[in-house]
Amino acid sequence: MSKRGFASDNNAGVHPAILEAMASANEGHAIAYGDDPLTMRTTMRMKEIFGKESEIFFVFIGTAANVLGLNAATQSHNAIICAETAHINVDECGAPEKFTACKLLPVATPNGKLTIEEVKKHMHGIGFEHHVQPRVISITQSTELGTLYTLDEIREICSYAHANNMLVHMDGARIANAAVAMDVGFYEMTGGAGVDLLSFGGTKNGMMYGEAIVFFDPQMASVFKYQRKQGMQLASKMRYISAQFAAYLENDLWKENALHANRMAQKLNEAVKDIPGVTVTQKVESNAVFAIIPPELTPRLQEHYFFYEWDEDRSEVRWMCSFDTTEEDIEDFAGLLRSMST
Amino acid sequence: MSKRGFASDNNAGVHPAILEAMASANEGHAIAYGDDPLTMRTTMRMKEIFGKESEIFFVFIGTAANVLGLNAATQSHNAIICAETAHINVDECGAPEKFTACKLLPVATPNGKLTIEEVKKHMHGIGFEHHVQPRVISITQSTELGTLYTLDEIREICSYAHANNMLVHMDGARIANAAVAMDVGFYEMTGGAGVDLLSFGGTKNGMMYGEAIVFFDPQMASVFKYQRKQGMQLASKMRYISAQFAAYLENDLWKENALHANRMAQKLNEAVKDIPGVTVTQKVESNAVFAIIPPELTPRLQEHYFFYEWDEDRSEVRWMCSFDTTEEDIEDFAGLLRSMST
Amino acid sequence: MSKRGFASDNNAGVHPAILEAMASANEGHAIAYGDDPLTMRTTMRMKEIFGKESEIFFVFIGTAANVLGLNAATQSHNAIICAETAHINVDECGAPEKFTACKLLPVATPNGKLTIEEVKKHMHGIGFEHHVQPRVISITQSTELGTLYTLDEIREICSYAHANNMLVHMDGARIANAAVAMDVGFYEMTGGAGVDLLSFGGTKNGMMYGEAIVFFDPQMASVFKYQRKQGMQLASKMRYISAQFAAYLENDLWKENALHANRMAQKLNEAVKDIPGVTVTQKVESNAVFAIIPPELTPRLQEHYFFYEWDEDRSEVRWMCSFDTTEEDIEDFAGLLRSMST
Amino acid sequence: MSKRGFASDNNAGVHPAILEAMASANEGHAIAYGDDPLTMRTTMRMKEIFGKESEIFFVFIGTAANVLGLNAATQSHNAIICAETAHINVDECGAPEKFTACKLLPVATPNGKLTIEEVKKHMHGIGFEHHVQPRVISITQSTELGTLYTLDEIREICSYAHANNMLVHMDGARIANAAVAMDVGFYEMTGGAGVDLLSFGGTKNGMMYGEAIVFFDPQMASVFKYQRKQGMQLASKMRYISAQFAAYLENDLWKENALHANRMAQKLNEAVKDIPGVTVTQKVESNAVFAIIPPELTPRLQEHYFFYEWDEDRSEVRWMCSFDTTEEDIEDFAGLLRSMST
Repeated sequence: MSKRGFASDNNAGVHPAILEAMASANEGHAIAYGDDPLTMRTTMRMKEIFGKESEIFFVFIGTAANVLGLNAATQSHNAIICAETAHINVDECGAPEKFTACKLLPVATPNGKLTIEEVKKHMHGIGFEHHVQPRVISITQSTELGTLYTLDEIREICSYAHANNMLVHMDGARIANAAVAMDVGFYEMTGGAGVDLLSFGGTKNGMMYGEAIVFFDPQMASVFKYQRKQGMQLASKMRYISAQFAAYLENDLWKENALHANRMAQKLNEAVKDIPGVTVTQKVESNAVFAIIPPELTPRLQEHYFFYEWDEDRSEVRWMCSFDTTEEDIEDFAGLLRSMST
Repeated sequence: MSKRGFASDNNAGVHPAILEAMASANEGHAIAYGDDPLTMRTTMRMKEIFGKESEIFFVFIGTAANVLGLNAATQSHNAIICAETAHINVDECGAPEKFTACKLLPVATPNGKLTIEEVKKHMHGIGFEHHVQPRVISITQSTELGTLYTLDEIREICSYAHANNMLVHMDGARIANAAVAMDVGFYEMTGGAGVDLLSFGGTKNGMMYGEAIVFFDPQMASVFKYQRKQGMQLASKMRYISAQFAAYLENDLWKENALHANRMAQKLNEAVKDIPGVTVTQKVESNAVFAIIPPELTPRLQEHYFFYEWDEDRSEVRWMCSFDTTEEDIEDFAGLLRSMST
Repeated sequence: MSKRGFASDNNAGVHPAILEAMASANEGHAIAYGDDPLTMRTTMRMKEIFGKESEIFFVFIGTAANVLGLNAATQSHNAIICAETAHINVDECGAPEKFTACKLLPVATPNGKLTIEEVKKHMHGIGFEHHVQPRVISITQSTELGTLYTLDEIREICSYAHANNMLVHMDGARIANAAVAMDVGFYEMTGGAGVDLLSFGGTKNGMMYGEAIVFFDPQMASVFKYQRKQGMQLASKMRYISAQFAAYLENDLWKENALHANRMAQKLNEAVKDIPGVTVTQKVESNAVFAIIPPELTPRLQEHYFFYEWDEDRSEVRWMCSFDTTEEDIEDFAGLLRSMST
Repeated sequence: MSKRGFASDNNAGVHPAILEAMASANEGHAIAYGDDPLTMRTTMRMKEIFGKESEIFFVFIGTAANVLGLNAATQSHNAIICAETAHINVDECGAPEKFTACKLLPVATPNGKLTIEEVKKHMHGIGFEHHVQPRVISITQSTELGTLYTLDEIREICSYAHANNMLVHMDGARIANAAVAMDVGFYEMTGGAGVDLLSFGGTKNGMMYGEAIVFFDPQMASVFKYQRKQGMQLASKMRYISAQFAAYLENDLWKENALHANRMAQKLNEAVKDIPGVTVTQKVESNAVFAIIPPELTPRLQEHYFFYEWDEDRSEVRWMCSFDTTEEDIEDFAGLLRSMST
């Protein structure tokens, strides 16, 4: 299974520059639990990106970034509004409920993007003690369906949230893919647009492990160091997470990787969209291609390339491109599909 | 701070062989979340060590191994009996209570080792619904004070626990140091002695991150895969944890590292124990040396070597040796202390 | 506000026979926390109704019966499937999530009754650790919309649940109203139809406080006494809850009260259904009438009789009848509405 | 078992005036969940006692008052310092841990009263993320051993707590017994002495059920209405709890009942203290008598009067007096003990 596939950007390995940075950090002793110089430097670097007021914390994975971030933003009687397809809603085995005790209020969406109109359907019973009280709107950028919120859409959601005494969380597991696709900076798309807290991921874009939580309002982070430790997310040998982020942000490695993955998705889209029996179902805006294909082809294709069915009932599949996907991979895969389809 | 110190075996870096194994794993794609061949092979290797019946799960850190393991072994009305000095009791910021909802019942100990006599003081109210019901005895091997339970002591605790409808959890964050000190195998000291579940650590002995939970009774693990995911401890790129464990267990790397760290502790003990004003307070059985030193020397020594005060009131300090501690480090440090003391 | 209204059967007082029974229990000392003879007798009486295998526990309120019952039937990675309108989903301020840590999976329904077809939409990801695992289907009888599941519908849901390794919980806050409407016994509609656990309520039908949890499988209740205590639902002076249930079940008081409330709802339905501008929106099967009325009438009517708007957007209101609603109340209220409408 | 005993003031029944008030409240409809006039009036009455700034909430039982109050005062990484004998520590089956996720830090005491000196032993690791952070000192008045904190002791504990960024919770399950014993008002002993939140109980002094949580700082109660509902402690027919409190506070009923129970304890103390083989072990300051008696007498006495062993090892028993204990009960019981002892 060492061959590259289209199952997940999590299946890709680690970018060599990241691995090198980790090896370079492996020298002598460093104070554990984040009080080392490399962690301090990397944190400062990220504060340059996200604003001096921001507070940055590293955790192990995206699920933890989402859950601990949401936990810091809520009390247990609150509710979190999110798209039905959100990772926090369907892919974290109830970790948000377990850790925050909040209820998630899902919003049906055709394209992974929630709209204020749909959010409003959950905005009742405010002040009524029998109901959970909505406190956070959580959006994913790029979404689980590979689509993008425009800057205006993000700003509008943030304005609506703030006007209704709510906060906005962004799950940025693939924020690099969004940033390069829209050609805007990380801050512009997050804190600059009104986002209150961000899960900033890199693992799907060439890192090994480690995710950052960015609080744009430092008040929200006032006891976060305890919450991270209690949440079992304080790394002892923190320097190796910091080394990854340092390398990821240096020399625009994140950008290079994300641009490449997005480009491969575009290429894949181009290569398959006119194959008979294939319908691309979502706008290809980042590194994902969703398509309906003839059901009998799925297992046959999977013998050659691993990927997941997204919606069995309609025979919809998901193909993810990674920083290490090659043009040959695309050509070979699309060629295979074309040959099977005709 | 890249100089080696005696603060913690967590401050040491990563053994080169581990790093190399991680780099070797970095090839092509691998199914995420543990369904990759390397993870399967490593798990099989560990089942050879811990018994075919055992179930092995990787998580990110020791706190998580302890907490998720205890969670699998308890219901929320249960209590967990442990030494007052146990990591779960004083160093995990309440993570066990938060995640398991159980009460911890601490047992005072002079040397980090709980005794059945002390455990018995918590064994009342059994069957009485107003009281939490003791369900797990948690012991640490080697203990937080560097001492060791003998095989007989472990067996006796396990017998007592089982006779009273309880289970035994072992926090093995430094189990390698214990195993080499006692010259017994991992299984003999754990499942073979009656232990029901084990946190098997390597980070303090040359790994970068990753810890294993070993369930000796597979029944206890029947839904653990969900509990791990919900506990935010399922690594996406699992192969890099597996690579570490594979290298750690291969060619007795764990043994070599632990033997060295223990030897350094013995050497340190020898070098300081007769310095005027210095009293070694615990038996030096693994890689830790606890000593009372003249209070005015602590800050002066810390200018040269970082380490922690253990008990400020009695001016007791803790010195930890690592796989990378050198004889020169010991000689230099002990020489410094001697020169300051006289 | 001592006038009777149509807001809620919770606004009614306590039936005199219940109050009398409580006074009669007020003699001498009785062992606290349920070890008194009256509690034992009442529990035995309920086991006669629900089966010798059943286990009966009293708690203070319906929310607690639901939440503690569901807690006993689940682990934290499970999900609970319920109607979107279920009390556990919208009226308990997130208590189920807080206490069980489970996710609730709501099912849209036009009439408060979930269907297997809709349940099936949540039955994916079984065995997949990223997803919560459905474990309980929770139904309400009579529903929050005053409708009834037929015996066949209950049996079918139970069969489906059991075939899929799930359990069925019934929220029986108004089970008496259902039982008399369908003219079937409590057991026939619950355990006899396959229901695994039941919240058996009486407060909405003339009791003061106190609800029973009925486990049809005693295994599920094996540690429930601890869970109830830890759930803050073990009454010290239990005899006063037991006295209420004893009186409620004696001489068919429950039946008399429920029959009356249902009859009043029928009468109300008859009296309003042909008033111009009024549309009764749900089948009137128990003690509730749902109706769309001209929006401007709602506040005018509320000046005379208190009741709640159910759905502001469509001007739908809810009118509940109680054991103490009188024919005059109905006539007066309907007359008022008619005079306002014309 | 309708005979009076000395097992618990919870075994006593309900004072007739309380029962009468409940019956009087049973008229017409009243808005459920506490929005009824009687609840408003009773709450206002209690605010007169506890200060205009105070916020008052009713719950069902003392365990809930303690747990929900502590929950409102803490975050999950906090710790609660209490006497080892505290009800929250040993008699609530882990409800505080389950609901607040905080760790309880018990303090050994000879007489149920914690001292600042003992509290200080837990005051380390402040600001250190690996440790839980002490946030509340919880004291019980009168204590579980029947002893009393003096006003000066309460003030001193509150000063220490506030100087260390902590709050003081008082478990006042038997506060009436304390108030009459010390002849001070409720406010003087609580908010007036610096206490931040209070569990105000009446069930052990003649009420049927219902307990009040008093927050002296309204800020702490800002979202408490949701926390109470989520905590399964919002009564639907609230008026019957309010009626009890109204009657309890009217005409000094609470005082009369508590004075009587205390007097009976004094009388019991007088009657038994010089019986050969009997040693009263705690100062008799409220309505409890603790005594060591010859072990063989315990079962023999229990044939006549029910009571609990407190400490089996030393043959220490607990005798509680209630509002309905009679002089004859005392004389008969003491006579019996004397006759058995000689």
